[in-house]
Amino acid sequence: MDVDFVISFRASKKTSISKKQTKDEARKAEIQYSRLLETLSYGGLKAVGRRGDSLGHLLVFVSCPDKLVQNLIIRERQSDFLSGLPVTPITNGNESMPLAPSDRLRLVHAYITSIPSDGGLGVTPGSPEWDLVESIFCLHDRSFNEQWIHAWTTSKIASVSDGRIRDQFGESVALYFSFLDSYTRALVLPAMIGISFYFFGTSYSPIYSILTVLWSIGFVEWWRVRERLISLRFGTRGSFRVEKRRAQYDPKFSWWKRELRMLASVPVILGFAALLFALMTGIFVFEAFVTQLYTGPGHKFISFSPTVLFVILVPRLVAVFQLCAQYFTQWENHAHHSSYNSSLTLKTFIFTALVAYLGLALSAFVYVPFGEGLMRIVQVWLFNGIVPHTGSQMNANLTDSSQAPQKAEFWDVDASSAETKLNPGRLKDQMFAYTVTNQIVNTFVEIGLPYVLRKITAFRTKKADPSNGTGSSLGKKKVVFEDEKEKGGQAEKEFLDQARAEAALPEYDVFGDYSEMVIQFGYVALWSTIWPLAPVMALLNNLLESRSDAFKITVHERRPTPVRTDTIGPWLEALAFLSWLAALTNSALVYLFCPREHSQCTSSDFGGSESAIERVHRHLVSTAGKEGIDGIWGEHGKGLGATKELLVMALLVALAASHGYLIVRSIMRHIMERLLWKGSEEVKERERDERMVKEVFLKGLGGGV
Amino acid sequence: MDVDFVISFRASKKTSISKKQTKDEARKAEIQYSRLLETLSYGGLKAVGRRGDSLGHLLVFVSCPDKLVQNLIIRERQSDFLSGLPVTPITNGNESMPLAPSDRLRLVHAYITSIPSDGGLGVTPGSPEWDLVESIFCLHDRSFNEQWIHAWTTSKIASVSDGRIRDQFGESVALYFSFLDSYTRALVLPAMIGISFYFFGTSYSPIYSILTVLWSIGFVEWWRVRERLISLRFGTRGSFRVEKRRAQYDPKFSWWKRELRMLASVPVILGFAALLFALMTGIFVFEAFVTQLYTGPGHKFISFSPTVLFVILVPRLVAVFQLCAQYFTQWENHAHHSSYNSSLTLKTFIFTALVAYLGLALSAFVYVPFGEGLMRIVQVWLFNGIVPHTGSQMNANLTDSSQAPQKAEFWDVDASSAETKLNPGRLKDQMFAYTVTNQIVNTFVEIGLPYVLRKITAFRTKKADPSNGTGSSLGKKKVVFEDEKEKGGQAEKEFLDQARAEAALPEYDVFGDYSEMVIQFGYVALWSTIWPLAPVMALLNNLLESRSDAFKITVHERRPTPVRTDTIGPWLEALAFLSWLAALTNSALVYLFCPREHSQCTSSDFGGSESAIERVHRHLVSTAGKEGIDGIWGEHGKGLGATKELLVMALLVALAASHGYLIVRSIMRHIMERLLWKGSEEVKERERDERMVKEVFLKGLGGGV
Repeated sequence: MDVDFVISFRASKKTSISKKQTKDEARKAEIQYSRLLETLSYGGLKAVGRRGDSLGHLLVFVSCPDKLVQNLIIRERQSDFLSGLPVTPITNGNESMPLAPSDRLRLVHAYITSIPSDGGLGVTPGSPEWDLVESIFCLHDRSFNEQWIHAWTTSKIASVSDGRIRDQFGESVALYFSFLDSYTRALVLPAMIGISFYFFGTSYSPIYSILTVLWSIGFVEWWRVRERLISLRFGTRGSFRVEKRRAQYDPKFSWWKRELRMLASVPVILGFAALLFALMTGIFVFEAFVTQLYTGPGHKFISFSPTVLFVILVPRLVAVFQLCAQYFTQWENHAHHSSYNSSLTLKTFIFTALVAYLGLALSAFVYVPFGEGLMRIVQVWLFNGIVPHTGSQMNANLTDSSQAPQKAEFWDVDASSAETKLNPGRLKDQMFAYTVTNQIVNTFVEIGLPYVLRKITAFRTKKADPSNGTGSSLGKKKVVFEDEKEKGGQAEKEFLDQARAEAALPEYDVFGDYSEMVIQFGYVALWSTIWPLAPVMALLNNLLESRSDAFKITVHERRPTPVRTDTIGPWLEALAFLSWLAALTNSALVYLFCPREHSQCTSSDFGGSESAIERVHRHLVSTAGKEGIDGIWGEHGKGLGATKELLVMALLVALAASHGYLIVRSIMRHIMERLLWKGSEEVKERERDERMVKEVFLKGLGGGV
Repeated sequence: MDVDFVISFRASKKTSISKKQTKDEARKAEIQYSRLLETLSYGGLKAVGRRGDSLGHLLVFVSCPDKLVQNLIIRERQSDFLSGLPVTPITNGNESMPLAPSDRLRLVHAYITSIPSDGGLGVTPGSPEWDLVESIFCLHDRSFNEQWIHAWTTSKIASVSDGRIRDQFGESVALYFSFLDSYTRALVLPAMIGISFYFFGTSYSPIYSILTVLWSIGFVEWWRVRERLISLRFGTRGSFRVEKRRAQYDPKFSWWKRELRMLASVPVILGFAALLFALMTGIFVFEAFVTQLYTGPGHKFISFSPTVLFVILVPRLVAVFQLCAQYFTQWENHAHHSSYNSSLTLKTFIFTALVAYLGLALSAFVYVPFGEGLMRIVQVWLFNGIVPHTGSQMNANLTDSSQAPQKAEFWDVDASSAETKLNPGRLKDQMFAYTVTNQIVNTFVEIGLPYVLRKITAFRTKKADPSNGTGSSLGKKKVVFEDEKEKGGQAEKEFLDQARAEAALPEYDVFGDYSEMVIQFGYVALWSTIWPLAPVMALLNNLLESRSDAFKITVHERRPTPVRTDTIGPWLEALAFLSWLAALTNSALVYLFCPREHSQCTSSDFGGSESAIERVHRHLVSTAGKEGIDGIWGEHGKGLGATKELLVMALLVALAASHGYLIVRSIMRHIMERLLWKGSEEVKERERDERMVKEVFLKGLGGGV
């Protein structure tokens, strides 16, 4: 029997205490299980149940007869045609063409899970009717995986014309790999620019920034056309029109209600952003003061604490947000999986991007320009006045100050050491951490960690196994189904072992992979002017990334259920948004940090040049020199005026850059459209096909329309 | 014979002198004339020639047999279907449905004029092959016109559901009238707001501005959906896909070459804009100084001179620009009439809008804020120093100054009289002139002037007739064709008189009418915060306008050749651009002119409030008082700083408003799309039709796709 799908069925979800409950659950499980098998065989599928990884866990192996598959194909092709999707060899009549494994799996999966009114069986995991059905998944094709791994260790991993990934894992995964491939190639350009500017130019170079922003706009617009071409080649263009409805969808629901509900998540996101902001500011203050200025016992260990705090607290916050986002997206009651996914993706992406970039943004636009003022205020608050009152002596070590020596004992009240944290170098360190350290950690988490975790789980279950059999699952003994008994020979045993192992793997979700790449794109586009080697690091990472992703899919995750798609969807919006943001951040960074002589920022290797921020700093310092600590932010201080002017000008520059972005984007889009879309082979072919169908139709009517 | 079209054929274009030339021309005309008749009858049309309004001028009456029309219908329906246009009753088979006069005329016109490779006869006026064919036009349907005029004098002129205009004049004209109707209804809203703010609020009210900008965005986005719905109802959606090629088009031409040529007109437009700017500034200076300060002999007459100068010079400039634009658009080598028209329209619109709004923009953003400074500079230059050196005495009459009394004799060197010109009142006067005086003049030009002109022409030709017969057209006597002789009875004579009269009328072009409305929209959206009664005036004008336009079409112009169209095309872009500009100008106007107390601009009826401009003026004056005339624009003057800050802040406000515009627009577009497009009757019907066609197709294939 050729197994198409495996349905994971778990008789009881949590350990129940009372005997009555256990009994009820067992009865319910038995009823649902037999209903499942009945539904499947009623639908013309062959279903066989076997024991899963533990008692009460069953794996139902489903296979679809070829006859039924043929019917499904015809039904899909008709609905595709009626909805205007490209249906290529429509004139071939009744002949069937060779069916790719992914198409077969997709059709069968849609048949099992879609609701009866869409012509399916309605067995949807998570629906109230089938609450014991955990998941429906397909099994890996071992021989294909081996071949594939062999192929990409020696040469490149994927190209669209080579349709192997699509035939095996479906259009969604294939689109991800071709995006990854395209993006990696596109990175070569900024990597080359980055290297040349790193070695022969300066950082915060306006030319580098302009080139980077142009590249990011160009890439996004290029991909916008490219994904349309790919979807034409895949024949999935417009696939959202034939998408099946979600089982959870409530049809009595107006569009504006859904959109109001979507709006409702805006304040939630803002709230979380505020939390994150507070957390990061807290960590920053802690870092700047406690670790730098505290010289008491144990300061070596305390200097690691900000990182530790960040690593502990932020993922917690992300996890809580993720739960919220899921809840809200459920509540929005989307009709289709694609719109559900894109709503959830957008929410999650916004927060992921905040986590990724907020630190840099705060450093660049708050701490470095205004940190000194902030720090003095905190210093005042911390030490009740043991702060230098004369700005010109600010850099002198004040530990031997006569005031409050008992407090200064453990504190290195030296503003200069704090200042070292507050120069543009801080930005570079952060960029290095984000683009090098983080990526290495990520790769390990993707590839190495699952091995470790599985080892640990295996060790644990081994230890827990005897107790498991006697302890909490004693009651479950009663829930032993007929199918739980082992039957068959060696081959079947091996097959069952494989199935059980794969059932224990996590489901593959393309979200994480896209997220990683898009966030990386953001580092390159938004912040690489701080450290022009960032694109190079991204390129190096991605050369490995495509392989590690492929490895992950084949080894560490379940085989993805094929999904038809014609776009990378919300990620494209995210990329476009990031390229817009890139125009803003780059212009503001260059405006603030680029050393210039008078108002020219083109030639940058002068001795006497200073950046706008340095100028304002000088103002601040000179004001402080004249009027003391209160003068810095005081009403009459020149520093405030200069700071305000700096902010207004930076805002003006950013807004102007935003307009520039819009203009450049529309030009790029137009050029890409003309160059790549109009007159491309795919489009021509599609038009020929459509015309042919219509001509056949006209002939059929004898020419008399 | 039912005449479909009249071809106006003129044997010689200009009076030629030498006998040889005359002979050659006569021979050429004879050859081309017989070729024309041959081509027409070869194409299956009936053609009869008659004498035109003068010797050498012939009118060829063309009529198309019903059989040929049937063939043309079938051919068009097939090509429509193949190109994906909505073809409604496609299942009716060979039956023909009642054909509207406009469809018949359109088909015959396309057949006569389109190039042979598009299946036409290729008789295109203006092409080198047919240089003597002046024009091809259709004759008015007198009885329809009378009925129609009667209908709209008693009730409203047009609605889409009432398809009379479409059946008579084609989709293009019908779309204009339904645009006019929609726009006029939409104007009721700002008119009401305007009245309430004029009587109960103040001008430059931020609330009024916000409401106006919101209205303009809303209207544009509403129309964007509305015109799509109309085009679905007309069945013309996507009509550009089946458009016939222009005869002048050179197919060996790449897209980028055309677009570079389109870019080439940018500097030309800029050059003309600069000329216009110089002209207007010149007139302004002339107005401000010569008419106000000159008190010598004849100053009563001289005070009219700026208006006279404007009326004489600006139309000249517009005419020259129009020629340039036509030349450039020809040179761009467009494949289709629609793209040719839209390119020409955009160019012309830009310049028309400049002419319309530049005066106001200069007044609002240059003369009123900085005019005083400018004027003093000019004064200095004019009188070599007979200017008040102490700003506090500036307003004193200096005619009795001891310096240069001989020059001041004829000049009222009183800055205060110039100042009166330079207050926001100037803006109100300008708005009144543009929205009231101009519109009255326009209506007269459209309705009354043609009568006058025709009277004059008739009088002239009567006078010139005898000399015409004997003088220059002596040579033409030889070019008397057989067809020039008068034949037939009284009915034919009347018919011929009508045809000759209509041949003398100008061709109708929808451009002028759209242009007038769009420019008016601009006044309402961009500038009505200056004078909130402007929308009321626009509304009043438009109630008359729809009738005067209809009258113009039926009486003063030739019957328009029906054209299929699915959009108001470049005008929609123009409207969108104006609504964007409205966001900018409104925010800048409110920022500059709204009286405020401290930084709040919400409550505006305080005694001590002053607008940002007044504040800067005060700065300027006080600076001038301290440092004299040179101090105003001097390096160290406080005035310069304040002016610069004002400019920077105004720019910041405008840029922020532009972003606000983009956000509001995308929200509005989304809402309109959901509310009006999705689920609308037209869209559903279209989808039903398409599905039906496809289902018929599937049935034909026996279900086996």
